[in-house]
Amino acid sequence: MSELSVNHLLGIKYLQKEDVELIFKTADHFKEVINRPIKKVPSLQDITIANLFFENSTRTRLSFELAEKRLSADVVNFSAASSSVKKGETLIDTVNNILSMKVDMVVMRHPNPGAGIFLSRHVNSSIINAGDGAHEHPTQALLDSYSIRERLGEVAGKKVVIVGDILHSRVALSNIFALKLQGAEVKVCGPKTLLPKHIESLGVTVETDLTKALQWCDVANMLRVQNERMDISYFPSTREYAQQFQLNKKKLEQLDREIVIMHPGPINRGVELTSDVADAENAIILDQVQNGVAVRMAVIYLLASGISR
Amino acid sequence: MSELSVNHLLGIKYLQKEDVELIFKTADHFKEVINRPIKKVPSLQDITIANLFFENSTRTRLSFELAEKRLSADVVNFSAASSSVKKGETLIDTVNNILSMKVDMVVMRHPNPGAGIFLSRHVNSSIINAGDGAHEHPTQALLDSYSIRERLGEVAGKKVVIVGDILHSRVALSNIFALKLQGAEVKVCGPKTLLPKHIESLGVTVETDLTKALQWCDVANMLRVQNERMDISYFPSTREYAQQFQLNKKKLEQLDREIVIMHPGPINRGVELTSDVADAENAIILDQVQNGVAVRMAVIYLLASGISR
Amino acid sequence: MSELSVNHLLGIKYLQKEDVELIFKTADHFKEVINRPIKKVPSLQDITIANLFFENSTRTRLSFELAEKRLSADVVNFSAASSSVKKGETLIDTVNNILSMKVDMVVMRHPNPGAGIFLSRHVNSSIINAGDGAHEHPTQALLDSYSIRERLGEVAGKKVVIVGDILHSRVALSNIFALKLQGAEVKVCGPKTLLPKHIESLGVTVETDLTKALQWCDVANMLRVQNERMDISYFPSTREYAQQFQLNKKKLEQLDREIVIMHPGPINRGVELTSDVADAENAIILDQVQNGVAVRMAVIYLLASGISR
Repeated sequence: MSELSVNHLLGIKYLQKEDVELIFKTADHFKEVINRPIKKVPSLQDITIANLFFENSTRTRLSFELAEKRLSADVVNFSAASSSVKKGETLIDTVNNILSMKVDMVVMRHPNPGAGIFLSRHVNSSIINAGDGAHEHPTQALLDSYSIRERLGEVAGKKVVIVGDILHSRVALSNIFALKLQGAEVKVCGPKTLLPKHIESLGVTVETDLTKALQWCDVANMLRVQNERMDISYFPSTREYAQQFQLNKKKLEQLDREIVIMHPGPINRGVELTSDVADAENAIILDQVQNGVAVRMAVIYLLASGISR
Repeated sequence: MSELSVNHLLGIKYLQKEDVELIFKTADHFKEVINRPIKKVPSLQDITIANLFFENSTRTRLSFELAEKRLSADVVNFSAASSSVKKGETLIDTVNNILSMKVDMVVMRHPNPGAGIFLSRHVNSSIINAGDGAHEHPTQALLDSYSIRERLGEVAGKKVVIVGDILHSRVALSNIFALKLQGAEVKVCGPKTLLPKHIESLGVTVETDLTKALQWCDVANMLRVQNERMDISYFPSTREYAQQFQLNKKKLEQLDREIVIMHPGPINRGVELTSDVADAENAIILDQVQNGVAVRMAVIYLLASGISR
Repeated sequence: MSELSVNHLLGIKYLQKEDVELIFKTADHFKEVINRPIKKVPSLQDITIANLFFENSTRTRLSFELAEKRLSADVVNFSAASSSVKKGETLIDTVNNILSMKVDMVVMRHPNPGAGIFLSRHVNSSIINAGDGAHEHPTQALLDSYSIRERLGEVAGKKVVIVGDILHSRVALSNIFALKLQGAEVKVCGPKTLLPKHIESLGVTVETDLTKALQWCDVANMLRVQNERMDISYFPSTREYAQQFQLNKKKLEQLDREIVIMHPGPINRGVELTSDVADAENAIILDQVQNGVAVRMAVIYLLASGISR
């Protein structure tokens, strides 16, 4: 397989196992590139990419921008704060306007679940979903799996627990799809009120006791507590949450072997993780960030090869 | 004629007919460039351009930025939100500071009418007015005329009606100047309270009945309803406005021939135009956007050739 | 000496006299470069620089960005407004994340004094302090000294008075360090409540009468009145301040010779300086701005040569 089965990256749900393998093989190459003195390749000199962020973001926007620049693409940034969106223009009109300026690819973060899918049906451009509400965040899941593969050799057969607010997390949903697709076993762990009903239908198991989940797993992916996205009524206080679901040294020392610790960032030190755990050797949090650039380069590169030029 | 008669693009008012012809001939070339696989030319590698936007803008800023990058200029962006303007610095000081950093050209949007003209008298740089209050928006008028020329072969002799809030619109004023300069016939149409007194002195006719105006014209340029710029007292409600001045399929079907429909964007679908009209084959709204990049490349390129380097 | 004695530019306090000389010699070269038609050199094509501005800034950010682009570095910008800082992430985590994306150098403005020093101890990257609270602003002091050297031949032996709010000014502190290091005589002048106690321990003299200070000096560096940083109680009103400490034509004409006038910008015309003084031939305010780009190119270039690639 030498090209993706899709023209957009809207969600992991739409990918084949072979797509993921191709992205990872391509990312291996780009990871080698970004560790060279000259961190750039001239591959996409003929491509213009617009980053449309209708929600604030630091690391995802920066990671995409660096990926694009290291592929030598031309980049234009667009953020909601300074946009015409407030002026009552429709999303399709906004994007069609940008595309009319001969933009080849759109990377979009949007608060509405499905915004990317909707857009891909109505505009003539390759769309990369950089997070759509509580729905999917496919490049995050890809870089997470890529980082597991890098640390443990492969994803297939590995036991991964995702801990936290599963209900509102696009990172959780995309990770579940990606890990299952690659043959990992997945467990979700969190307060009952933050676990979606019928989550088992996705092929995952549920555990509300973090200690038990940790004893089972090879990898613990600790989600960020996103206070900004919570409904007060069914969410525990930060203190209650930390008491039950915080990963700390003591809990790790009770295990009979070392597990890999992940976090999509930004970390609330002292909430999801204690500081010593965040900085431990088996925490691969900064590897995830570095791999993010390589994986995004791979996705952009592969989608760009499908653009008629 | 191989160069512009001006050192700045402050308004259409200051241009000769030959300037417009030269800009369009140059834009023809750049339109061909941006439709190639490699959408760039190395022409302005030695030029640094600052985009100074003291008002929010999406499409105009993006269009200028793409035009500059496709000419290979170095680009720095400056927006009021993060600027020192709030710190009490004068506009001349702000711009002179930026020019001292060896910036060659300034693209400026400013809320004050005449800001560009004022600046051009006090600083030593080529200034492009990207909109100064309700005064002029010359590149918009150029791309509008260029799009008419592209669709209808020429501008001279064509009948163009500009519909909407003529009183507060820099797009209307620049279009009137540009169309008259090229020998088009121009009518303005809108609520009486939104038509400037003595507008006929600019050589245009006035019509308050949209149906009559449409029967007369070859081209209808539908202005955006800019609620943010209105005084409640003399402006009709959006609903009243739409009842009288909205362009819809029914009104178009009553005509005995097809007319060209334009809009400077962003569109309020259901206000100035119904959705079916906005998406109709004879609406050239997205052509306008595409031509905007080519026309801005031409303006920047021609002004840059006058810079002593 | 062909390289700096430091790996970071955190403050003038940490520099040797030879460092300053090397920076100036290198800046001479870059000043010549930015006055050529092609204002760029390909020196840092393999370097990625992140500009992290946790405080608003126009001229400093723009000056650094132009310096970086003219060295052909890849540039990513990060401003607090759109950042994850609000999400509770620590500064070290934010910067480590950015560095994990293979960023080589960080230019940082931060409201906390010592933020750069703190960071340099905890992250593995070259840090340039672009202003840390009321502490230091080393590139400003370097460009100020460079501009004195350019105008008067050398800094050693020159008499420089710094006028204004010395207590809260990072520009004043960095200038005192820089000028003393190079053998200039330094006097500070301002309202008593805005002069730090024990300031004489830095080797400067104190004067509260501007006329006397001007009679003594070769150079007057007029600090900006930063109302936003003042405590109402110990700060005079703007009017009282201007009466005593404003530099105007009358005060200059009382002197028996011409002095050089400097200001770090942005100027409050009519407060620190009258307009005629700001625009006088012996005011080198715009030279300072132009030299800022060359000096920053020199600092970045010299620090980059110490990066293992």
